[in-house]
Amino acid sequence: MNKKLSRSLSERSPCPVSTTLDLVGDKWTLLIIRDIGFFGRHRNKDFQQGVENIPSNILASRLKMLLDKKLIYRTPYQNNPVRYEYFLTEAGEGLLPVIKAMANWGRDNVAGTYMPRRLQ
Amino acid sequence: MNKKLSRSLSERSPCPVSTTLDLVGDKWTLLIIRDIGFFGRHRNKDFQQGVENIPSNILASRLKMLLDKKLIYRTPYQNNPVRYEYFLTEAGEGLLPVIKAMANWGRDNVAGTYMPRRLQ
Repeated sequence: MNKKLSRSLSERSPCPVSTTLDLVGDKWTLLIIRDIGFFGRHRNKDFQQGVENIPSNILASRLKMLLDKKLIYRTPYQNNPVRYEYFLTEAGEGLLPVIKAMANWGRDNVAGTYMPRRLQ
Repeated sequence: MNKKLSRSLSERSPCPVSTTLDLVGDKWTLLIIRDIGFFGRHRNKDFQQGVENIPSNILASRLKMLLDKKLIYRTPYQNNPVRYEYFLTEAGEGLLPVIKAMANWGRDNVAGTYMPRRLQ
């Protein structure tokens, strides 16, 4: 069932914290996983309508990386031009506890946060 | 007790996932928190001896940010020249569950990881 990802991006160390950060250690990737997994956003325009205003070039590069690493998959929902919806793979769903832990920390430690109901 | 951090770095949104990533959303910051919180590393040379080989300029900038944001504090352990040891504040300790969740994900999903005993 669980075909593991090869450790290839930067190979800093075999520590699983490091290998996880090699993949999702940036300001945007986990927001896309959050959008799909908690907020029911699946299409390019859904992601771009998020309050964080992800730049379109960053969105495109992160979706490509997540597809390459099989943390998400996509299915077409229209042709001419073809457009895709994105969903989490089992490995991608596995990141939801990381996101939840981050949400709890932000709620407890950063002023002015608002915990969305879907993250509670 | 719990004086919350101001939300100031990038102010992308009030979502606590986003505000957390504003602070620690990069490849290195959580490794420093891991080093202090799980591996008992407290001094510059301890961090630099980690297997990930953190570049010294990145280490310096992250320690400064973590001090500014009060996720760590420091105490001198020698004078002439003065050198410091770094420890987690209560807010910094609050990130350990995030790191643990990342470690579990890396263990389960990335080939070639090795879970250090102190992270188990």
